[in-house]
Amino acid sequence: MNLWGKRNDMVVHEREPFNAEPPPAALTGGPAVALTSLDAFFSRNHGPIPDLDPAAWRLEVDGTVTRPLSLSLEELRTRFEETEVVATLQCAGNRRTGLTGVRPVPGETPWGPGAISTARFRGVRLADVLARAGPAPGTAHLAFTGADVAPGARPPQPYGGSVPLEKALGPEVLLAWAMNDAPLPRVHGAPLRAVVPGWIGARSVKWLRRVTARTTPSDAYFQTTAYRLLPADAGPGRTGPGDGIPLGPSPLNCAVLSPVDGSRPPAGPAQVTGYALGGEHRTVARVEVSADGGRTWRPADVDEPAGPWVWQHWRTVLDLPRGEVEIVARAWDSAGTTTPESPAALWNPRGYANTSWPRVRLCCGPG
Amino acid sequence: MNLWGKRNDMVVHEREPFNAEPPPAALTGGPAVALTSLDAFFSRNHGPIPDLDPAAWRLEVDGTVTRPLSLSLEELRTRFEETEVVATLQCAGNRRTGLTGVRPVPGETPWGPGAISTARFRGVRLADVLARAGPAPGTAHLAFTGADVAPGARPPQPYGGSVPLEKALGPEVLLAWAMNDAPLPRVHGAPLRAVVPGWIGARSVKWLRRVTARTTPSDAYFQTTAYRLLPADAGPGRTGPGDGIPLGPSPLNCAVLSPVDGSRPPAGPAQVTGYALGGEHRTVARVEVSADGGRTWRPADVDEPAGPWVWQHWRTVLDLPRGEVEIVARAWDSAGTTTPESPAALWNPRGYANTSWPRVRLCCGPG
Repeated sequence: MNLWGKRNDMVVHEREPFNAEPPPAALTGGPAVALTSLDAFFSRNHGPIPDLDPAAWRLEVDGTVTRPLSLSLEELRTRFEETEVVATLQCAGNRRTGLTGVRPVPGETPWGPGAISTARFRGVRLADVLARAGPAPGTAHLAFTGADVAPGARPPQPYGGSVPLEKALGPEVLLAWAMNDAPLPRVHGAPLRAVVPGWIGARSVKWLRRVTARTTPSDAYFQTTAYRLLPADAGPGRTGPGDGIPLGPSPLNCAVLSPVDGSRPPAGPAQVTGYALGGEHRTVARVEVSADGGRTWRPADVDEPAGPWVWQHWRTVLDLPRGEVEIVARAWDSAGTTTPESPAALWNPRGYANTSWPRVRLCCGPG
Repeated sequence: MNLWGKRNDMVVHEREPFNAEPPPAALTGGPAVALTSLDAFFSRNHGPIPDLDPAAWRLEVDGTVTRPLSLSLEELRTRFEETEVVATLQCAGNRRTGLTGVRPVPGETPWGPGAISTARFRGVRLADVLARAGPAPGTAHLAFTGADVAPGARPPQPYGGSVPLEKALGPEVLLAWAMNDAPLPRVHGAPLRAVVPGWIGARSVKWLRRVTARTTPSDAYFQTTAYRLLPADAGPGRTGPGDGIPLGPSPLNCAVLSPVDGSRPPAGPAQVTGYALGGEHRTVARVEVSADGGRTWRPADVDEPAGPWVWQHWRTVLDLPRGEVEIVARAWDSAGTTTPESPAALWNPRGYANTSWPRVRLCCGPG
């Protein structure tokens, strides 16, 4: 068996903490909603994978609530309405290699375009659990704490983060125990994880132990210090708690899945495929693809959105000339916002949120 | 008296329909929330300004509602709770001249950075009025119809547009009769206008006559055909109803107010000022300014947001060298999204949504 049940062609960036992304071919869209199979779903971790006993496990709901709760899995399943959401989860560092091509990003995982995946999650609404606990006036954020301990955090601590109450109350935010109709795999957070559709994956905390109502955002390292967009010129001395912009809602993003960067296809008609994600609650309205580095563009066929939380695959056929070819793609969301051109303007010290036009360089031989 | 009570240095693009923007100096931020005075507030119209008799005027609420309403101004004022919102309204064509520098945009008003203004509006919540009418199941959009008739629409028709029900129900969306504590001026929609904070100004319909609950978006020309983002290569034959992306939520935007493009200040320290608008429900988290065309940047001081619907002014001091200088600015919103670099990548046939880095070219003389 491969690492954590993953397919044997996963790109494993680290074995512990386990950080791996599927090859682009494993993310290509199919005829229906493009769910990612469990053996291909990307895995982003900050510590060793916990091994929790579901029978002994409990979820604590505490903080600024009038009735703190301690719930077993069975109690969660029977006392609240079960529901499902199809959600694309994307790491804030997805496509980081596009930024490291501008300037190195030391100490961060060099994600390609595969730190993104989609699954159908099943569980209960966080809003329903919170309503049972009764948030006190002034409650403005919900903090999640996992059972995984991150040795790289300052100081080492359980993984955690928070979302504003307004987002937490959305019917799409789940506490989930199943993924693609299977029990939540251990590597993806069993027995229970948060699923926060439309937001960076970092807020969908795995191995969930505690949900804490607060008047302020989580004071966990992964909220105060990591997952923040620092100014490009921020040195190590400027990266303390509270610096930079805390990342939350996912930005509009777009990637090419095929052909693969650096490959040597024959000249002539070639299918170009990829995905785009609208971000937050938006969908993707248009994708354009260029075979000449961005001078001329043609529209791609974009799949209808399966919902505001789900990526959309796209495809078109380009006539590739012989020689060096640069394929470029760009996307527009449902409000008319488009992706920025250059990774140089987006570079930031931790290498988050590379939404620049994906570029795939080919050398096309005789057809 | 000047045209429609406006200050005499307004930039009047057209006298009828009246289209005018204030000079940049009239939009500079003050110490408090930067409201725009009524004599400077930009004016964007598609037809002659109506002259309505407030005593005879009524608002019809119809469509997919269980209790259609016909309300006088007095009934609106007395039957619903009065409330206020401070909102920045921005035309979808604001900063269009940045796009016309790339390629002409025939037939559209050449707005500089002044097709944006901020006021305190007073009126009643659209949600409260709608609740009284009782939207039927399936209602998904609220359409507004004004009393102004647009001769340039195909066919000529009253101005109108719609917003999705979810936005319409937001407590920030008003039917307003006052502006900056004064009665709503005739040129700004008296006796009653819609105010849809966070969305393009085109949805804040003036001289409001009718609110229609619908299962689909408005079929007015200004929803189906105008205010849509067309592909760059869309010719006149491709600009029929339903083409392009309907604009709605405002995008993140940023402009320089001083120094003025083309001016000749002395070399040495110079104050640079401007505004930025987060768009939809976001605020502005960071603005950076460059005196070397974008090679190096320094952070500006950005005013705290007065709310999610309000622009934020910013300022910094740059040391201007002698000779040709290009000042550039860029902004980030509260989710870490930043403005795109180049207007060339944003050009579209109607010239909407120029959010590219503003550029101000100066020739600096001896200090």
